[in-house]
Amino acid sequence: MAHHCYFNGITTSVEATNIHITDLGLLRGYGLFDYFRTYNGRPFKWDWYWERYERSAKLMRLPNPISKEDAYRVVLDLIKKSGLDDCGIRFVLTGGYAEDSMTMSKPNLLIISEDIHPVKPKEYETGIKVISHEYVRDYPDLKSTDYKHLMILQPEIKEAGASDVLFYKRGYISELSRSNIFLVKNDILITPNRKILRGITRRFVLELAKEHFKVEERNVELSELFDADEVFTTSSTKKVLPITQIDKKIIAGGVVGSKTKFLLDLMNEKVKNW
Amino acid sequence: MAHHCYFNGITTSVEATNIHITDLGLLRGYGLFDYFRTYNGRPFKWDWYWERYERSAKLMRLPNPISKEDAYRVVLDLIKKSGLDDCGIRFVLTGGYAEDSMTMSKPNLLIISEDIHPVKPKEYETGIKVISHEYVRDYPDLKSTDYKHLMILQPEIKEAGASDVLFYKRGYISELSRSNIFLVKNDILITPNRKILRGITRRFVLELAKEHFKVEERNVELSELFDADEVFTTSSTKKVLPITQIDKKIIAGGVVGSKTKFLLDLMNEKVKNW
Repeated sequence: MAHHCYFNGITTSVEATNIHITDLGLLRGYGLFDYFRTYNGRPFKWDWYWERYERSAKLMRLPNPISKEDAYRVVLDLIKKSGLDDCGIRFVLTGGYAEDSMTMSKPNLLIISEDIHPVKPKEYETGIKVISHEYVRDYPDLKSTDYKHLMILQPEIKEAGASDVLFYKRGYISELSRSNIFLVKNDILITPNRKILRGITRRFVLELAKEHFKVEERNVELSELFDADEVFTTSSTKKVLPITQIDKKIIAGGVVGSKTKFLLDLMNEKVKNW
Repeated sequence: MAHHCYFNGITTSVEATNIHITDLGLLRGYGLFDYFRTYNGRPFKWDWYWERYERSAKLMRLPNPISKEDAYRVVLDLIKKSGLDDCGIRFVLTGGYAEDSMTMSKPNLLIISEDIHPVKPKEYETGIKVISHEYVRDYPDLKSTDYKHLMILQPEIKEAGASDVLFYKRGYISELSRSNIFLVKNDILITPNRKILRGITRRFVLELAKEHFKVEERNVELSELFDADEVFTTSSTKKVLPITQIDKKIIAGGVVGSKTKFLLDLMNEKVKNW
C-alpha cells in the first residue's frame, strides 16, 4: 500500500498529485498547515485537532471547504489506504489559484497521509541538543506553512550537531521549530503560554501532568532553562523528548529527569490502547 | 499568444504547468520570489535584477540552478512567446521536492511571464490611500514568497478603501507590502534604508533624483510622513505613485507634489526608449 492525497474532493496517490503553479500557497506563502498522527489506526485527539484547524483557517481568512464529518471520512480512508496503524496526516489549506497572483477565489485543500519519522530511541535516553535563536514566528498561534526561517537555519543546526532550534525573543522563550517546550524547577512543571502554537501534545501532557504536579503556564526567560532541573519538548512525533543541551550549556548534568521519564511513560501507556 | 512558464529546463504554457505537492515552497514556505518587467520587449535593469536574485538565493541557502546567460535566454524566449512588449517576469525558486517534507535536495526553478497589472491612470492624479500596520517582514532584505501577512490583511485594506498597507515597527517605517516609500520635506528626498527590500525602481529613482535633489537614506519615523510635503511609493508596476492619505490623515492637503510628478515624468521619459 502507499500514501495518498485528497485534493479538493479527489483522492489519488501522493506520487500522482500535482498542484497548479498559480496556487497562492506556492506563490505567496498563503497556506495553513496542520498535522496529527494516528495510534492503532485511529486519529489521535481528532476533536482537539479539528478545533485548532478551524480556528487557524478563520484567523487566516481561508474559508474552510470541508465539514468535520467529511474530513473525518477522508482521514479514515487515507489511513486505510496507507495500510499502516501509525501514520501522519497533513492538512494543507491554501489561498487557491490566482491568475493575478494576489486575489483569492476558492481555497485548495490537500489532506495527505505520510510516514511518521519517529525520534531515534536512543534520544529518549540521552536527550537532544538544541541551539537558541532570537526569532518569533509571524502569527505564532497559527500553524501556517511559514517555516522559511527554520529552513534557512538548517546549516547552523547541523553544524552545531543539534536536533532543532529554540526560539526566544527579548529574553523570553516561546517554542522549538515544530514543538513546544517545558521545564521542571523545584517540582513545578513550567511552560510558555505566549507567542506559541498550542500543540495537541502540549495540551495532552498538561492534562496528564496536572493530576501529578503543580503546573505553571507563564512567560519563561531563556535563562531559566539553564538552571532548570529538567527540560523537554513535546510534539505529535516526539511525544515527550528530553533536552539535555542548549547551545554549549549542559542542562542538569546532561541527565534525563525523572518527571520527563514519568510523563513519557504515562503518555506511552495512554496511547498504547488509543 | 499566451504566457508561458519555464520549469527546470522545460517551457510550457502557464496553464499546463503543475508542481508536485511535496515541493518545499508549498509545504514550508521555502521559496524565493523575484519579479521584474520589460519595456519595449527588453528586461528593465536586468543586471540589477540578477544581482538581487543571486544574493537572495545565497541568503536563503537555495542553490541557484541557472547561469545569468541561460536565464536571460529563457526570459527573452518567454517575452517572445507572450507576444507583448510590456510583460512581467516572475522568478520562483523553491527548496524543491522533499519526501519527508523537510530535507532539501534539488531546488525547483520557475520563470513565468505574466500580464502587468498597471496602476489606474487616475491614481497618478489623485494619489492613493494606504493604511499603516505594525509589522516587519522576516528577512526583509530578501524577496521571498512570504506574503502571508499581507494576504491576511486584505479585508482591512479593502474595508478602509485603501490600496495597500504601509509597514512600520516601533515608530519607524520600512516599506509598503510590495513597494518602497519616499517622502519629500523641505526639498530633501528621504527614504528608509533599513528593514526593506531594495527595490529595482527605488534604486533607479534614487539615481535619477540625486542629479536634482538632496537625498537622504536613513531611519524614518512614521510621524514624519504626516507633515511631509510629498509622499510616494515606487515599484516596477507602480513606477512613482503618489500617496495622499495614510489612515485617516490627508498628506499635504491631498495634492500630488511637484517632485513626485517630476520624478514620474523623468522615469516615464527614461523607460520610453528603454
